[in-house]
Amino acid sequence: MTKEIEVVENIFEENDRIAAQVNKTLTENKVFCINVLGAPGVGKTSVMKRIAEKANFTPFVIEGDIESDIDTETLNKLGIKTVQINTHGACHLDAPSIQNALTGISHIKNGVLFIENIGNLVCPAEFNIGEHAKMLIVSTTDGSDKPYKYPLAFEKANLIILNKCDLTPYLDFDYDFFLKGVLMQNKNATVISVSAKDGDGFDKVVEWIENNACRI
Amino acid sequence: MTKEIEVVENIFEENDRIAAQVNKTLTENKVFCINVLGAPGVGKTSVMKRIAEKANFTPFVIEGDIESDIDTETLNKLGIKTVQINTHGACHLDAPSIQNALTGISHIKNGVLFIENIGNLVCPAEFNIGEHAKMLIVSTTDGSDKPYKYPLAFEKANLIILNKCDLTPYLDFDYDFFLKGVLMQNKNATVISVSAKDGDGFDKVVEWIENNACRI
Repeated sequence: MTKEIEVVENIFEENDRIAAQVNKTLTENKVFCINVLGAPGVGKTSVMKRIAEKANFTPFVIEGDIESDIDTETLNKLGIKTVQINTHGACHLDAPSIQNALTGISHIKNGVLFIENIGNLVCPAEFNIGEHAKMLIVSTTDGSDKPYKYPLAFEKANLIILNKCDLTPYLDFDYDFFLKGVLMQNKNATVISVSAKDGDGFDKVVEWIENNACRI
Repeated sequence: MTKEIEVVENIFEENDRIAAQVNKTLTENKVFCINVLGAPGVGKTSVMKRIAEKANFTPFVIEGDIESDIDTETLNKLGIKTVQINTHGACHLDAPSIQNALTGISHIKNGVLFIENIGNLVCPAEFNIGEHAKMLIVSTTDGSDKPYKYPLAFEKANLIILNKCDLTPYLDFDYDFFLKGVLMQNKNATVISVSAKDGDGFDKVVEWIENNACRI
Protein backbone atom coordinates (compact mmCIF):
# COMPACT_ATOMS: atom_id res chain seq x y z
CA MET A 1 0.00 0.00 0.00
CA THR A 2 2.90 2.40 0.73
CA LYS A 3 4.09 2.02 -2.86
CA GLU A 4 0.61 2.97 -4.14
CA ILE A 5 0.50 6.14 -2.00
CA GLU A 6 4.00 7.10 -3.15
CA VAL A 7 3.04 6.70 -6.83
CA VAL A 8 -0.12 8.81 -6.38
CA GLU A 9 1.86 11.57 -4.63
CA ASN A 10 4.40 11.60 -7.44
CA ILE A 11 1.61 11.93 -10.03
CA PHE A 12 0.11 14.96 -8.22
CA GLU A 13 3.51 16.64 -7.74
CA GLU A 14 4.51 16.19 -11.38
CA ASN A 15 1.05 17.40 -12.51
CA ASP A 16 1.29 20.57 -10.38
CA ARG A 17 4.79 21.32 -11.66
CA ILE A 18 3.62 21.18 -15.29
CA ALA A 19 0.36 23.06 -14.48
CA ALA A 20 2.49 25.96 -13.19
CA GLN A 21 4.46 26.00 -16.47
CA VAL A 22 1.23 25.98 -18.54
CA ASN A 23 -0.21 28.81 -16.43
CA LYS A 24 2.96 30.91 -16.87
CA THR A 25 2.93 30.48 -20.66
CA LEU A 26 -0.76 31.39 -20.91
CA THR A 27 -0.38 34.42 -18.64
CA GLU A 28 2.61 35.69 -20.67
CA ASN A 29 0.44 35.45 -23.79
CA LYS A 30 -2.49 37.24 -22.10
CA VAL A 31 -4.68 34.16 -22.45
CA PHE A 32 -7.16 33.79 -19.56
CA CYS A 33 -7.74 30.06 -19.08
CA ILE A 34 -10.96 28.55 -17.71
CA ASN A 35 -11.18 24.88 -16.67
CA VAL A 36 -14.79 23.89 -17.46
CA LEU A 37 -16.04 21.20 -15.08
CA GLY A 38 -19.35 19.36 -14.93
CA ALA A 39 -21.13 16.02 -15.02
CA PRO A 40 -22.11 14.44 -18.37
CA GLY A 41 -24.96 16.23 -20.11
CA VAL A 42 -25.10 19.41 -18.02
CA GLY A 43 -24.49 21.50 -21.15
CA LYS A 44 -20.78 22.38 -21.02
CA THR A 45 -20.48 22.82 -24.79
CA SER A 46 -23.84 24.63 -25.09
CA VAL A 47 -22.78 27.09 -22.38
CA MET A 48 -19.47 27.79 -24.18
CA LYS A 49 -21.37 28.40 -27.44
CA ARG A 50 -23.60 30.99 -25.75
CA ILE A 51 -20.58 32.69 -24.11
CA ALA A 52 -18.81 32.87 -27.49
CA GLU A 53 -21.88 34.51 -29.08
CA LYS A 54 -22.00 37.30 -26.47
CA ALA A 55 -18.29 37.82 -25.84
CA ASN A 56 -16.05 40.66 -26.97
CA PHE A 57 -12.99 38.44 -26.46
CA THR A 58 -11.64 35.74 -28.80
CA PRO A 59 -12.54 32.27 -27.46
CA PHE A 60 -10.32 29.21 -27.96
CA VAL A 61 -11.33 25.73 -26.80
CA ILE A 62 -9.51 22.56 -25.82
CA GLU A 63 -12.20 19.89 -25.89
CA GLY A 64 -11.64 16.91 -23.59
CA ASP A 65 -13.58 13.71 -24.25
CA ILE A 66 -12.99 10.06 -23.52
CA GLU A 67 -13.99 9.26 -27.10
CA SER A 68 -15.65 11.09 -30.04
CA ASP A 69 -15.20 14.60 -31.44
CA ILE A 70 -18.90 15.54 -31.60
CA ASP A 71 -18.42 18.76 -29.60
CA THR A 72 -15.26 19.82 -31.48
CA GLU A 73 -17.11 19.51 -34.78
CA THR A 74 -19.95 21.65 -33.40
CA LEU A 75 -17.58 24.37 -32.16
CA ASN A 76 -15.36 24.43 -35.26
CA LYS A 77 -18.46 24.87 -37.44
CA LEU A 78 -19.23 28.02 -35.42
CA GLY A 79 -15.73 29.35 -36.18
CA ILE A 80 -14.40 28.73 -32.64
CA LYS A 81 -10.84 27.40 -32.86
CA THR A 82 -11.04 24.06 -31.07
CA VAL A 83 -8.48 21.33 -30.43
CA GLN A 84 -9.62 17.81 -29.45
CA ILE A 85 -8.08 15.68 -26.71
CA ASN A 86 -9.35 12.09 -26.43
CA THR A 87 -8.30 10.39 -23.21
CA HIS A 88 -9.41 6.89 -24.37
CA GLY A 89 -10.72 5.91 -20.95
CA ALA A 90 -9.07 8.34 -18.54
CA CYS A 91 -11.58 10.12 -16.32
CA HIS A 92 -9.97 13.60 -16.21
CA LEU A 93 -7.57 15.88 -18.06
CA ASP A 94 -4.12 16.45 -16.56
CA ALA A 95 -1.55 19.20 -17.01
CA PRO A 96 0.79 17.23 -19.32
CA SER A 97 -2.08 16.62 -21.79
CA ILE A 98 -2.81 20.37 -21.83
CA GLN A 99 0.87 21.26 -22.30
CA ASN A 100 0.92 18.90 -25.24
CA ALA A 101 -2.32 20.27 -26.77
CA LEU A 102 -0.98 23.84 -26.49
CA THR A 103 1.86 23.02 -28.87
CA GLY A 104 -0.87 22.72 -31.52
CA ILE A 105 -2.21 26.21 -30.78
CA SER A 106 1.02 27.88 -29.64
CA HIS A 107 0.27 31.13 -31.46
CA ILE A 108 -2.81 31.98 -29.33
CA LYS A 109 -2.59 35.40 -27.69
CA ASN A 110 -5.02 37.85 -26.11
CA GLY A 111 -8.12 35.78 -25.60
CA VAL A 112 -9.91 33.29 -23.40
CA LEU A 113 -9.08 29.59 -23.51
CA PHE A 114 -11.84 27.26 -22.32
CA ILE A 115 -10.71 23.74 -21.48
CA GLU A 116 -13.77 21.48 -21.43
CA ASN A 117 -12.83 18.71 -19.03
CA ILE A 118 -14.20 15.15 -19.12
CA GLY A 119 -17.86 14.96 -18.09
CA ASN A 120 -17.36 13.88 -14.50
CA LEU A 121 -18.28 15.66 -11.29
CA VAL A 122 -15.59 13.85 -9.28
CA CYS A 123 -12.06 13.34 -10.62
CA PRO A 124 -11.41 16.49 -12.73
CA ALA A 125 -11.76 18.69 -9.61
CA GLU A 126 -8.61 17.04 -8.16
CA PHE A 127 -6.24 18.14 -10.94
CA ASN A 128 -4.99 21.63 -11.77
CA ILE A 129 -4.32 21.92 -15.48
CA GLY A 130 -2.83 25.43 -15.61
CA GLU A 131 -6.12 27.34 -15.46
CA HIS A 132 -6.72 30.78 -13.97
CA ALA A 133 -10.28 29.87 -12.91
CA LYS A 134 -12.59 26.88 -12.59
CA MET A 135 -16.10 27.20 -14.02
CA LEU A 136 -18.44 24.49 -12.70
CA ILE A 137 -21.61 23.85 -14.68
CA VAL A 138 -24.51 22.05 -13.02
CA SER A 139 -28.05 21.48 -14.22
CA THR A 140 -31.46 21.96 -12.62
CA THR A 141 -32.48 18.57 -14.05
CA ASP A 142 -29.83 16.82 -11.92
CA GLY A 143 -31.48 17.95 -8.68
CA SER A 144 -30.66 20.39 -5.90
CA ASP A 145 -28.59 18.01 -3.73
CA LYS A 146 -25.40 17.98 -5.82
CA PRO A 147 -23.31 20.33 -3.57
CA TYR A 148 -23.90 17.94 -0.64
CA LYS A 149 -22.95 14.81 -2.61
CA TYR A 150 -20.01 16.12 -4.68
CA PRO A 151 -18.45 18.75 -2.41
CA LEU A 152 -14.95 19.05 -3.92
CA ALA A 153 -16.06 20.39 -7.32
CA PHE A 154 -18.16 23.06 -5.57
CA GLU A 155 -15.34 23.89 -3.13
CA LYS A 156 -12.83 24.44 -5.95
CA ALA A 157 -15.09 26.43 -8.32
CA ASN A 158 -14.69 30.17 -8.89
CA LEU A 159 -17.83 30.47 -11.01
CA ILE A 160 -20.84 28.13 -10.67
CA ILE A 161 -23.34 28.13 -13.53
CA LEU A 162 -26.75 26.59 -12.93
CA ASN A 163 -27.97 25.62 -16.41
CA LYS A 164 -31.34 24.45 -17.83
CA CYS A 165 -33.34 26.97 -15.81
CA ASP A 166 -35.94 26.92 -18.62
CA LEU A 167 -36.97 23.45 -17.36
CA THR A 168 -37.63 24.40 -13.71
CA PRO A 169 -41.43 24.65 -14.22
CA TYR A 170 -41.41 20.86 -14.85
CA LEU A 171 -39.02 19.93 -12.00
CA ASP A 172 -38.96 19.90 -8.19
CA PHE A 173 -35.70 21.88 -8.07
CA ASP A 174 -35.22 23.56 -4.67
CA TYR A 175 -32.99 26.59 -5.30
CA ASP A 176 -32.68 27.56 -1.61
CA PHE A 177 -31.50 24.05 -0.67
CA PHE A 178 -29.05 24.13 -3.61
CA LEU A 179 -27.63 27.52 -2.63
CA LYS A 180 -27.34 26.51 1.04
CA GLY A 181 -25.28 23.51 -0.11
CA VAL A 182 -23.08 25.69 -2.31
CA LEU A 183 -22.41 28.10 0.57
CA MET A 184 -21.47 25.20 2.87
CA GLN A 185 -18.62 24.35 0.47
CA ASN A 186 -17.69 27.74 -0.89
CA LYS A 187 -18.56 31.28 0.19
CA ASN A 188 -16.53 33.01 -2.54
CA ALA A 189 -17.83 31.54 -5.78
CA THR A 190 -20.19 33.54 -7.98
CA VAL A 191 -23.41 31.64 -8.81
CA ILE A 192 -25.28 32.50 -12.02
CA SER A 193 -28.51 30.88 -13.29
CA VAL A 194 -28.76 30.46 -17.07
CA SER A 195 -30.58 28.69 -19.86
CA ALA A 196 -28.27 27.67 -22.69
CA LYS A 197 -31.39 26.79 -24.68
CA ASP A 198 -32.91 30.30 -24.47
CA GLY A 199 -29.71 32.31 -23.92
CA ASP A 200 -30.90 33.77 -20.62
CA GLY A 201 -28.30 34.84 -18.04
CA PHE A 202 -25.23 34.95 -20.28
CA ASP A 203 -24.67 38.72 -20.02
CA LYS A 204 -23.66 38.12 -16.39
CA VAL A 205 -21.42 35.16 -17.29
CA VAL A 206 -19.56 37.16 -19.94
CA GLU A 207 -19.23 40.11 -17.54
CA TRP A 208 -17.69 37.80 -14.90
CA ILE A 209 -15.19 36.39 -17.40
CA GLU A 210 -14.20 39.82 -18.76
CA ASN A 211 -13.75 41.24 -15.23
CA ASN A 212 -11.52 38.34 -14.24
CA ALA A 213 -9.64 38.06 -17.53
CA CYS A 214 -8.38 41.64 -17.32
CA ARG A 215 -6.67 40.89 -13.98
CA ILE A 216 -4.03 38.52 -15.39
CA MET B 1 6.01 4.88 -15.46
CA THR B 2 6.49 1.07 -15.28
CA LYS B 3 5.97 1.21 -11.52
CA GLU B 4 2.65 3.08 -12.02
CA ILE B 5 1.37 0.47 -14.51
CA GLU B 6 2.39 -2.35 -12.18
CA VAL B 7 0.53 -0.79 -9.23
CA VAL B 8 -2.63 -0.27 -11.33
CA GLU B 9 -2.51 -3.91 -12.53
CA ASN B 10 -2.16 -5.13 -8.94
CA ILE B 11 -5.18 -3.05 -7.88
CA PHE B 12 -7.36 -4.57 -10.66
CA GLU B 13 -6.19 -8.15 -9.91
CA GLU B 14 -6.84 -7.82 -6.18
CA ASN B 15 -10.23 -6.22 -6.87
CA ASP B 16 -11.30 -9.05 -9.20
CA ARG B 17 -10.20 -11.69 -6.69
CA ILE B 18 -12.38 -10.17 -3.96
CA ALA B 19 -15.25 -9.51 -6.39
CA ALA B 20 -15.34 -13.26 -7.13
CA GLN B 21 -15.58 -14.00 -3.38
CA VAL B 22 -18.41 -11.47 -2.94
CA ASN B 23 -20.28 -12.94 -5.92
CA LYS B 24 -19.92 -16.49 -4.54
CA THR B 25 -21.28 -15.49 -1.11
CA LEU B 26 -24.25 -13.65 -2.63
CA THR B 27 -25.07 -16.52 -5.02
CA GLU B 28 -24.95 -19.06 -2.17
CA ASN B 29 -27.45 -16.90 -0.28
CA LYS B 30 -29.71 -16.54 -3.35
CA VAL B 31 -29.16 -12.79 -3.43
CA PHE B 32 -29.19 -11.39 -6.99
CA CYS B 33 -26.86 -8.39 -7.02
CA ILE B 34 -27.21 -5.40 -9.35
CA ASN B 35 -24.47 -2.78 -9.72
CA VAL B 36 -26.36 0.48 -10.39
CA LEU B 37 -24.30 2.84 -12.57
CA GLY B 38 -25.04 6.34 -13.79
CA ALA B 39 -23.93 9.98 -13.90
CA PRO B 40 -24.91 12.36 -11.06
CA GLY B 41 -28.58 13.27 -11.08
CA VAL B 42 -29.90 10.70 -13.54
CA GLY B 43 -32.26 9.34 -10.88
CA LYS B 44 -30.53 6.21 -9.56
CA THR B 45 -32.25 6.36 -6.17
CA SER B 46 -35.65 7.33 -7.65
CA VAL B 47 -35.48 4.36 -10.03
CA MET B 48 -34.69 1.97 -7.15
CA LYS B 49 -37.66 3.38 -5.18
CA ARG B 50 -40.01 2.68 -8.09
CA ILE B 51 -38.60 -0.84 -8.54
CA ALA B 52 -39.08 -1.55 -4.82
CA GLU B 53 -42.73 -0.40 -5.04
CA LYS B 54 -43.54 -2.81 -7.88
CA ALA B 55 -41.37 -5.78 -6.93
CA ASN B 56 -42.38 -9.13 -5.47
CA PHE B 57 -38.81 -9.65 -4.19
CA THR B 58 -37.19 -8.18 -1.07
CA PRO B 59 -34.86 -5.31 -2.03
CA PHE B 60 -31.67 -4.48 -0.11
CA VAL B 61 -29.46 -1.49 -0.95
CA ILE B 62 -25.82 -0.58 -0.47
CA GLU B 63 -25.71 3.15 -1.12
CA GLY B 64 -22.40 4.54 -2.37
CA ASP B 65 -21.74 8.26 -2.06
CA ILE B 66 -18.63 10.38 -1.81
CA GLU B 67 -20.24 12.27 1.08
CA SER B 68 -23.73 12.57 2.65
CA ASP B 69 -26.41 9.98 3.45
CA ILE B 70 -29.36 11.79 1.84
CA ASP B 71 -30.35 8.79 -0.30
CA THR B 72 -29.93 6.26 2.53
CA GLU B 73 -32.28 8.30 4.72
CA THR B 74 -34.85 8.39 1.90
CA LEU B 75 -34.67 4.61 1.34
CA ASN B 76 -34.69 3.65 5.03
CA LYS B 77 -37.80 5.80 5.54
CA LEU B 78 -39.51 3.65 2.88
CA GLY B 79 -38.59 0.50 4.82
CA ILE B 80 -35.85 -0.56 2.37
CA LYS B 81 -32.89 -1.94 4.33
CA THR B 82 -30.00 0.29 3.24
CA VAL B 83 -26.35 0.46 4.25
CA GLN B 84 -24.27 3.57 3.53
CA ILE B 85 -20.74 3.61 2.13
CA ASN B 86 -19.01 7.01 1.96
CA THR B 87 -15.85 6.97 -0.14
CA HIS B 88 -14.70 10.45 1.03
CA GLY B 89 -13.39 11.43 -2.37
CA ALA B 90 -12.96 8.14 -4.23
CA CYS B 91 -14.73 8.13 -7.59
CA HIS B 92 -16.02 4.52 -7.62
CA LEU B 93 -16.87 1.60 -5.35
CA ASP B 94 -14.50 -1.36 -5.30
CA ALA B 95 -14.95 -4.99 -4.29
CA PRO B 96 -13.19 -4.71 -0.89
CA SER B 97 -15.60 -1.93 0.17
CA ILE B 98 -18.57 -4.16 -0.77
CA GLN B 99 -17.10 -7.15 1.07
CA ASN B 100 -16.75 -4.94 4.11
CA ALA B 101 -20.30 -3.53 3.84
CA LEU B 102 -21.74 -7.05 3.53
CA THR B 103 -20.47 -7.91 7.00
CA GLY B 104 -23.08 -5.40 8.23
CA ILE B 105 -25.91 -7.19 6.38
CA SER B 106 -24.55 -10.75 6.48
CA HIS B 107 -27.97 -12.25 7.20
CA ILE B 108 -29.51 -11.22 3.86
CA LYS B 109 -30.95 -14.14 1.90
CA ASN B 110 -33.39 -14.59 -0.99
CA GLY B 111 -33.69 -11.11 -2.39
CA VAL B 112 -32.18 -8.51 -4.69
CA LEU B 113 -29.26 -6.36 -3.59
CA PHE B 114 -28.88 -3.04 -5.41
CA ILE B 115 -25.49 -1.40 -5.06
CA GLU B 116 -25.82 2.26 -6.01
CA ASN B 117 -22.39 3.21 -7.27
CA ILE B 118 -20.87 6.73 -7.14
CA GLY B 119 -22.56 9.12 -9.58
CA ASN B 120 -19.98 8.92 -12.35
CA LEU B 121 -20.36 7.68 -15.92
CA VAL B 122 -16.65 6.84 -16.23
CA CYS B 123 -14.72 5.10 -13.43
CA PRO B 124 -17.33 2.76 -11.84
CA ALA B 125 -17.67 0.84 -15.14
CA GLU B 126 -14.04 -0.31 -14.78
CA PHE B 127 -14.50 -2.19 -11.50
CA ASN B 128 -16.42 -5.41 -10.84
CA ILE B 129 -17.80 -5.40 -7.32
CA GLY B 130 -19.28 -8.89 -7.18
CA GLU B 131 -22.50 -8.14 -9.06
CA HIS B 132 -24.52 -10.50 -11.24
CA ALA B 133 -25.63 -7.65 -13.54
CA LYS B 134 -24.90 -4.01 -14.28
CA MET B 135 -27.89 -1.65 -14.59
CA LEU B 136 -26.94 1.63 -16.28
CA ILE B 137 -29.28 4.56 -15.77
CA VAL B 138 -29.16 7.49 -18.19
CA SER B 139 -31.45 10.47 -18.54
CA THR B 140 -33.17 12.12 -21.51
CA THR B 141 -32.14 15.50 -20.07
CA ASP B 142 -28.44 14.63 -20.52
CA GLY B 143 -28.82 14.34 -24.30
CA SER B 144 -28.76 11.53 -26.83
CA ASP B 145 -24.99 11.50 -27.45
CA LYS B 146 -23.91 9.77 -24.23
CA PRO B 147 -23.24 6.28 -25.74
CA TYR B 148 -20.76 7.88 -28.16
CA LYS B 149 -18.93 9.85 -25.46
CA TYR B 150 -18.90 7.31 -22.59
CA PRO B 151 -18.72 3.97 -24.41
CA LEU B 152 -17.43 1.69 -21.61
CA ALA B 153 -20.46 2.06 -19.32
CA PHE B 154 -22.77 1.21 -22.23
CA GLU B 155 -20.56 -1.69 -23.33
CA LYS B 156 -20.60 -3.26 -19.85
CA ALA B 157 -24.32 -2.78 -19.07
CA ASN B 158 -26.80 -5.67 -19.05
CA LEU B 159 -29.82 -3.40 -18.57
CA ILE B 160 -29.96 0.23 -19.75
CA ILE B 161 -32.70 2.40 -18.29
CA LEU B 162 -33.52 5.67 -20.03
CA ASN B 163 -35.10 7.81 -17.29
CA LYS B 164 -36.99 11.15 -17.27
CA CYS B 165 -39.02 10.30 -20.37
CA ASP B 166 -41.78 12.57 -18.99
CA LEU B 167 -39.55 15.54 -19.93
CA THR B 168 -39.02 14.66 -23.62
CA PRO B 169 -41.73 17.10 -24.85
CA TYR B 170 -39.47 19.93 -23.59
CA LEU B 171 -36.17 18.52 -24.93
CA ASP B 172 -34.49 17.82 -28.29
CA PHE B 173 -33.75 14.20 -27.34
CA ASP B 174 -33.13 12.04 -30.45
CA TYR B 175 -34.06 8.47 -29.45
CA ASP B 176 -32.94 6.90 -32.76
CA PHE B 177 -29.47 8.50 -32.47
CA PHE B 178 -29.28 7.34 -28.82
CA LEU B 179 -30.26 3.75 -29.69
CA LYS B 180 -27.84 3.65 -32.64
CA GLY B 181 -25.08 4.65 -30.20
CA VAL B 182 -26.12 1.99 -27.68
CA LEU B 183 -26.08 -0.71 -30.38
CA MET B 184 -22.59 0.37 -31.51
CA GLN B 185 -21.32 -0.49 -28.00
CA ASN B 186 -23.59 -3.34 -27.00
CA LYS B 187 -26.02 -5.51 -28.96
CA ASN B 188 -27.10 -7.62 -25.97
CA ALA B 189 -28.30 -5.11 -23.39
CA THR B 190 -32.02 -4.61 -22.80
CA VAL B 191 -33.07 -0.94 -23.12
CA ILE B 192 -36.17 0.25 -21.23
CA SER B 193 -37.60 3.80 -21.21
CA VAL B 194 -39.09 4.95 -17.90
CA SER B 195 -40.23 7.94 -15.90
CA ALA B 196 -39.35 7.64 -12.22
CA LYS B 197 -41.52 10.72 -11.66
CA ASP B 198 -44.69 9.14 -13.10
CA GLY B 199 -43.82 5.47 -12.55
CA ASP B 200 -44.14 4.61 -16.26
CA GLY B 201 -42.15 1.64 -17.62
CA PHE B 202 -41.32 -0.08 -14.32
CA ASP B 203 -43.36 -3.24 -14.98
CA LYS B 204 -40.80 -4.11 -17.66
CA VAL B 205 -37.85 -3.31 -15.37
CA VAL B 206 -39.19 -5.51 -12.57
CA GLU B 207 -39.91 -8.31 -15.07
CA TRP B 208 -36.30 -8.13 -16.37
CA ILE B 209 -34.91 -8.33 -12.82
CA GLU B 210 -37.18 -11.22 -11.80
CA ASN B 211 -36.33 -13.18 -14.96
CA ASN B 212 -32.61 -12.75 -14.37
CA ALA B 213 -32.69 -13.21 -10.60
CA CYS B 214 -34.21 -16.68 -10.89
CA ARG B 215 -31.24 -17.86 -12.98
CA ILE B 216 -28.64 -17.64 -10.20
